[in-house]
Amino acid sequence: MTTRFAVAVHVLVFLQRHGDEPASSEVLAGSVGTNPSLIRRLLSRLNRAGLTRSRLGTGGGALLARPADAISLLEVYRAVEDDEDVIPLHPSPHPQCPVGGRIKRLLTPRIEAVRHAMHAELARTTIADLAVEIDETPPLRPDAAAP
Amino acid sequence: MTTRFAVAVHVLVFLQRHGDEPASSEVLAGSVGTNPSLIRRLLSRLNRAGLTRSRLGTGGGALLARPADAISLLEVYRAVEDDEDVIPLHPSPHPQCPVGGRIKRLLTPRIEAVRHAMHAELARTTIADLAVEIDETPPLRPDAAAP
Repeated sequence: MTTRFAVAVHVLVFLQRHGDEPASSEVLAGSVGTNPSLIRRLLSRLNRAGLTRSRLGTGGGALLARPADAISLLEVYRAVEDDEDVIPLHPSPHPQCPVGGRIKRLLTPRIEAVRHAMHAELARTTIADLAVEIDETPPLRPDAAAP
Repeated sequence: MTTRFAVAVHVLVFLQRHGDEPASSEVLAGSVGTNPSLIRRLLSRLNRAGLTRSRLGTGGGALLARPADAISLLEVYRAVEDDEDVIPLHPSPHPQCPVGGRIKRLLTPRIEAVRHAMHAELARTTIADLAVEIDETPPLRPDAAAP
């Protein structure tokens, strides 16, 4: 698993707080602590998933494409991660071995159940829930909040 | 995530069916469809976690270190995967940004909840449950079962 999910959540919470003003990939990269080209690749995934949209031209950048309370962490996860990676199966068990020929069929329903439990948990939180908490949460280093 | 979990489950189910007879890394590798050195590295993790043990010498190999109904998929998972990898955080959000300075604290409890849901699901199945199903499950290709 990559850090794409965490970065995407970060970006979406940032955009929620930015309101109607688009945020550039440079500004987002500064907040996330990465480079703008990685942010642009991520935004193109989020755009495709209908979570963000881009405003072109001077002063352009990224905006949320829908209200933050209509974006669950599950949708973010699905937009940026390949779900098959959660617990991948090995590719070539021996088909004539009693275990090898059946392991995929045995493990698949268990892995599906794990995935379902993850999804149910992720679906419980929206970007709006996290954005609300920002104002209630002290910063990591109290001195960082000083003017 | 790697395929280590799936391979480890495969190996443990195989050992359960092998009973008191040790299985060599070569035999295990043939069933899994990989090379013996990968199996040996995996077995050393499983040994360390107390799930398997090795019998040395001629005719030696791996054995289960405890009854298969006392090995849950959660224990297998913990023996071979680094749990921090499930949903990793990005390493360096900007500490002075209102979002960057708080994103870790916001996301950590959500990621913990996802992990907890995964664990609860994995804890529900044992190696014995899977081994029992082997005999009830037709092989992937029916012709492969022919004598």
